[in-house]
Amino acid sequence: MSKDIKKVVLAYSGGLDTSVILKWIALTYNCEVVTLTADLGQEEDLDGVDAKALATGASRAYVEDLREEFARDFIFPMMRANAVYEGRYLLGTSIARPLIAKRLVEIAHEEGAQAIAHGATGKGNDQVRFELAAMALDPKLKMIAPWREWNFRSRTDLTNFASQHGIPLPVAASRKLYSMDRNMLHCSFEGGELEDPWNEPLEGSYIMAVPVEQAPDTPEYIELEYLHGDPVALNGEKLSPAAMLKALNTLGGKHGIGRLDMVENRFVGIKSRGVYETPGGTIMHIAHRDLEGICLDRESMHLRDSLITRYSECVYNGFWFAPEREALQKLIDETQRNVTGTVRVKLYKGNVVPVGRKSPFSLYRADLATFEEDEVYNQADAAGFIRLQGLRLLGYKK
Amino acid sequence: MSKDIKKVVLAYSGGLDTSVILKWIALTYNCEVVTLTADLGQEEDLDGVDAKALATGASRAYVEDLREEFARDFIFPMMRANAVYEGRYLLGTSIARPLIAKRLVEIAHEEGAQAIAHGATGKGNDQVRFELAAMALDPKLKMIAPWREWNFRSRTDLTNFASQHGIPLPVAASRKLYSMDRNMLHCSFEGGELEDPWNEPLEGSYIMAVPVEQAPDTPEYIELEYLHGDPVALNGEKLSPAAMLKALNTLGGKHGIGRLDMVENRFVGIKSRGVYETPGGTIMHIAHRDLEGICLDRESMHLRDSLITRYSECVYNGFWFAPEREALQKLIDETQRNVTGTVRVKLYKGNVVPVGRKSPFSLYRADLATFEEDEVYNQADAAGFIRLQGLRLLGYKK
Amino acid sequence: MSKDIKKVVLAYSGGLDTSVILKWIALTYNCEVVTLTADLGQEEDLDGVDAKALATGASRAYVEDLREEFARDFIFPMMRANAVYEGRYLLGTSIARPLIAKRLVEIAHEEGAQAIAHGATGKGNDQVRFELAAMALDPKLKMIAPWREWNFRSRTDLTNFASQHGIPLPVAASRKLYSMDRNMLHCSFEGGELEDPWNEPLEGSYIMAVPVEQAPDTPEYIELEYLHGDPVALNGEKLSPAAMLKALNTLGGKHGIGRLDMVENRFVGIKSRGVYETPGGTIMHIAHRDLEGICLDRESMHLRDSLITRYSECVYNGFWFAPEREALQKLIDETQRNVTGTVRVKLYKGNVVPVGRKSPFSLYRADLATFEEDEVYNQADAAGFIRLQGLRLLGYKK
Amino acid sequence: MSKDIKKVVLAYSGGLDTSVILKWIALTYNCEVVTLTADLGQEEDLDGVDAKALATGASRAYVEDLREEFARDFIFPMMRANAVYEGRYLLGTSIARPLIAKRLVEIAHEEGAQAIAHGATGKGNDQVRFELAAMALDPKLKMIAPWREWNFRSRTDLTNFASQHGIPLPVAASRKLYSMDRNMLHCSFEGGELEDPWNEPLEGSYIMAVPVEQAPDTPEYIELEYLHGDPVALNGEKLSPAAMLKALNTLGGKHGIGRLDMVENRFVGIKSRGVYETPGGTIMHIAHRDLEGICLDRESMHLRDSLITRYSECVYNGFWFAPEREALQKLIDETQRNVTGTVRVKLYKGNVVPVGRKSPFSLYRADLATFEEDEVYNQADAAGFIRLQGLRLLGYKK
Repeated sequence: MSKDIKKVVLAYSGGLDTSVILKWIALTYNCEVVTLTADLGQEEDLDGVDAKALATGASRAYVEDLREEFARDFIFPMMRANAVYEGRYLLGTSIARPLIAKRLVEIAHEEGAQAIAHGATGKGNDQVRFELAAMALDPKLKMIAPWREWNFRSRTDLTNFASQHGIPLPVAASRKLYSMDRNMLHCSFEGGELEDPWNEPLEGSYIMAVPVEQAPDTPEYIELEYLHGDPVALNGEKLSPAAMLKALNTLGGKHGIGRLDMVENRFVGIKSRGVYETPGGTIMHIAHRDLEGICLDRESMHLRDSLITRYSECVYNGFWFAPEREALQKLIDETQRNVTGTVRVKLYKGNVVPVGRKSPFSLYRADLATFEEDEVYNQADAAGFIRLQGLRLLGYKK
Repeated sequence: MSKDIKKVVLAYSGGLDTSVILKWIALTYNCEVVTLTADLGQEEDLDGVDAKALATGASRAYVEDLREEFARDFIFPMMRANAVYEGRYLLGTSIARPLIAKRLVEIAHEEGAQAIAHGATGKGNDQVRFELAAMALDPKLKMIAPWREWNFRSRTDLTNFASQHGIPLPVAASRKLYSMDRNMLHCSFEGGELEDPWNEPLEGSYIMAVPVEQAPDTPEYIELEYLHGDPVALNGEKLSPAAMLKALNTLGGKHGIGRLDMVENRFVGIKSRGVYETPGGTIMHIAHRDLEGICLDRESMHLRDSLITRYSECVYNGFWFAPEREALQKLIDETQRNVTGTVRVKLYKGNVVPVGRKSPFSLYRADLATFEEDEVYNQADAAGFIRLQGLRLLGYKK
Repeated sequence: MSKDIKKVVLAYSGGLDTSVILKWIALTYNCEVVTLTADLGQEEDLDGVDAKALATGASRAYVEDLREEFARDFIFPMMRANAVYEGRYLLGTSIARPLIAKRLVEIAHEEGAQAIAHGATGKGNDQVRFELAAMALDPKLKMIAPWREWNFRSRTDLTNFASQHGIPLPVAASRKLYSMDRNMLHCSFEGGELEDPWNEPLEGSYIMAVPVEQAPDTPEYIELEYLHGDPVALNGEKLSPAAMLKALNTLGGKHGIGRLDMVENRFVGIKSRGVYETPGGTIMHIAHRDLEGICLDRESMHLRDSLITRYSECVYNGFWFAPEREALQKLIDETQRNVTGTVRVKLYKGNVVPVGRKSPFSLYRADLATFEEDEVYNQADAAGFIRLQGLRLLGYKK
Repeated sequence: MSKDIKKVVLAYSGGLDTSVILKWIALTYNCEVVTLTADLGQEEDLDGVDAKALATGASRAYVEDLREEFARDFIFPMMRANAVYEGRYLLGTSIARPLIAKRLVEIAHEEGAQAIAHGATGKGNDQVRFELAAMALDPKLKMIAPWREWNFRSRTDLTNFASQHGIPLPVAASRKLYSMDRNMLHCSFEGGELEDPWNEPLEGSYIMAVPVEQAPDTPEYIELEYLHGDPVALNGEKLSPAAMLKALNTLGGKHGIGRLDMVENRFVGIKSRGVYETPGGTIMHIAHRDLEGICLDRESMHLRDSLITRYSECVYNGFWFAPEREALQKLIDETQRNVTGTVRVKLYKGNVVPVGRKSPFSLYRADLATFEEDEVYNQADAAGFIRLQGLRLLGYKK
């Protein structure tokens, strides 16, 4: 163990695992531990979490509300890119990690700490995301990842250590069936019956959204107003980024929207199966794509579309604070300059259906699209257009 | 008018427009007209369409059932690519055009015709698709596109011409509200209230699928079996490509699946608004993507994903018989070698939810994905992996 | 001929073709013609070109030195992108067209003209570039492209028309063997013996650079200093963009650098064979790529590299003033933030050989690259890195 | 040290390092060591290398001539892709590694070995390439990478170990200034004065090609005949792949062709500076690209070009035996079907200048490219082509 580590900043949730980690680091590294508990909209009561950290041995416990920063500087830029990992996953967990890492590094600087620590396991993506973000922001800071370091080999080892050191165990009833991660964008579920990809997820995997079967029998229409690619008003009411997402989560959750069950490819080379709930994010994603239909030029859109895979890899793999993600963001934000307008969306039984869209920058012109005559489009032009398009195919049959 | 044109092969639907075109070509070019009416699963009664063609002046009328070829050689290869235009459209109209063009060219060769003709307008994509396919297959054939050539300026001009030449007009009741195109993959709707993108589509725009509100209140589960990326059996029953699509259309239609309302970018430079129904194709698309989750290697998938935009442009823009589409298809088909297995899908109120998937080629390994110990994955490896991944970010803050 | 056209702005070189065009437009459209002759570094004497235009019937003749704007706002941004068309062509002709079109449109606005005109033929790329740029900048302006409109069928028709209207013919001796285009970035040659791709270009196709065989027998070393991706000083002397290019042309020309002979694909669907001389641009291109080696992060570079084809298509096809080119430029310029430093280049007999490079933002670290121990790189990390990289290949042999 | 390892197959060059490794493995793992020395065209005398291996403790020593397989199945497919890493490097070292790994794995199977071993250091790319290829081909085999395992900290440690164990040291005179790697495609140089990127390479870094200054003063013309993208005859003489490369190396070397000095990005996250000589490969690369100019359709070429970066990453990073490389190869090989014909190339003082090209599949048509009238291209078509191309730009100025 490095002698140089005198103070560590730990990402602390208040749960059993990070409590054990807190104590384990203090004992193993013989150092001071400062904790950070961030409110990212996980809808957990954070009252008392600082007291718990201090009781478990922390020298200082930060509890911070980062919801607006999370929505504005992380989720919204990512949604402007229409980011989707492997065609389906809206990256709810991935996008939270760089923000937490950023605050860990900032607090390390304020506190004069030499290392940061997290509770992510050695087989997952989150360890990579935390550590790459931290390396980018301050390569001199050391990383402590207890799951890769200690000798605990089972849950029982953990609970034994907890009992030994007076860390309160969760009551049996509250024990989670799944390994979960929740924030204002989504909730993820792994483990349990999901480990067999042939099993249908059980009812315990619903938290943010009702099962579609239980959603109302009456559709609900909303109007979502966008400015430069970001949603800014709902049904005429201006909302901050975090308030917007919260409101859309309520709507989406009520209508059973945004549920996903998939096997995905982790960055560390493993396939894993997860269930995701992204109610508000799904509404945002679909409405945004729809508004682009009238606001975005064809080639800008296709160019951007061809880069979604790459951008999503950046987010998923933990390269948020990375020059390639930033370069892509410049391109994407340039395409969003005129993505301003309103989408009318019908929500019903898991369906998000854009039924109307309008924009002061609309490039749609009804007179051009109909097959009637108009002032701009000369149908005879099409003959020349087609002939020159086809010229290079003359040798096709060779 | 070219003196060289003595015989023309016309894509003939039996409707008013192509009947007028048939007569107009015969008169204008003073030539023989042979018609082709193809059954692509549009579920129209084609009995008597040949008699009608002959009565309108055709010298010969081909009526052909191309459904299996359409499904097997056009729709299925496209679905193996997960093709989606502008993130949403499953390309139902686009994919039918090259097949019709191919048959027009073949018949032109058999009949010794000098030209082929179609009824697509001068502002749409279909003219491009027909003509590019024909140019690729036989650059010597002339193209006749009456909508770009004649002087008719309105529907009234057309009906006047029809009356003059004894072409029966459809009874008022059967007149369509929309400009529609239907085949076994989809039905499209344009025009009418849809010309204002802010208008919600009316009930007339439902043909292949019920409105979600009218779908059954009970979910239905199906099992779809794939071989090398193609669906080959439904609930244990082997089905031909066309039979598979028909069965999935029935299922999807019943559950209100596969409806899309969007503003898209035409190849000719115009934005247009359309409503699409693709019930069976939507089930296929979603189930295929899901099965790939366990069968496809990560980098093959991401590579293929990054090319979906390009492949879809090929199909949408009419470059099916084109070297770039064929090169892409080679890449895609190579990725599908092991996409073999079964997906269990829940259909309910417009939702297509994969709930289980299995494959003899599954790359998913439960032992690797859990955070427990296993034989293959050494958690300590992750530290080295992350450190080398992050090494290039050391200069990030410069 | 449109009655609405009362004044036209014509891109006028002073040569026979555009003189004929000037007169032809004035007569055919019965309108006023204003000419623009731009100095883009073509090294032709423009004295008297205004007099000639006026004598041929122009109502006003603009002669403008656009060299600095050309270098700064067109060539340099394109070189920051490392743009190369079809792996070889540095786009010397392509990049000049949007600037000329921009000035034509601006003058049309100042002059109250209704149309702009150019002397590009109906089979080339330049017509597309001129007209797309103009459409983007002012879609209301009409385009006049005499080569596509008039009935002249040969050179003789043209000279007859010239003789008839008192337009002086070039003396036989000065007649060009090739169709040429020259500006400060390059000189292109088409036609003549080049029409057969098997023919080696003759000596007439050398203007900006000597044949390699005639280049000095002694190498010359230069130092090129870059700031944010642009060359700003040569051998320690600060130079404006146009002065930089001129100086590099002199150097490159002396050493026989930057000659290219290729068959390329025109946007209009035709293959054509051209010879290009790009002496200074070739030095810039190679030195820039070399400096990026130490200044650019790997993933930024690879991302940018994967977009060179697309960016080059924008420039070649005439989509300079287009949203997709601008979005790409944002990405590219972001990658160039730290491309600042000095490259030492050896010039010798057609070879441009970077032999040294340094930068205040260099990401190269000698201590990391050697196989000795260092402080940052732990060789044991590589084992974990490799094992996780390879994990997804475990199923490869299936 | 794993008890399970009883026999190891080692990639053995006969030099000091791999001799030390041979002995070290035998002692450390207490196991049998079998060696493989492959002739990949490195032009070293391999006589006696087996005796040396056996004398140093190997139980069996394979010496194999793999030149034809190397050229045919590795170099040629890669050259068909026009692979270039970071815009410049022709991947000469990278492409050799998977072949060696494949033979190591095959021999391990024949010999019943449990592990394979190589002499690549822990900071380079080669370790990754060897081990990824081996993991792909047989994930059960163990990897031994002594440079990452032992405690030697310097050259002196190594030579001490050698002396101790009777391994002959190279005489001082033959000690290499650089870390080098040579095969029939190239020779690479690292280290020495090259560690400072500002230093010009010294004369010791020339092996396969003369300095340009020493190349003949007379140009030499060759004709290179291609079949489906591969060179098959030189100046009319059919040559096997390996013979072709050897002949081109002689020609290229004589004329000072194919030298490169660059700073590149290693896969392990480090920048390194290398000098490469690729005389014959450079001729092949340039001639191939040139022939494609007449044989390849525009969109196939641009599509392939946009994938060169990705393909080259596969090769450079060691993912040769990987599904994504194989999928790309299918696409590439499809584009090469008609890349058949002859290129005439001038070689002179480092310059490789294609001066003529012809093909039975040429898509070039002189009649289309000139601005004269022809039968196929109607210049009036260009107006329609341009207008529809520009239609989407009408909203550009918003």
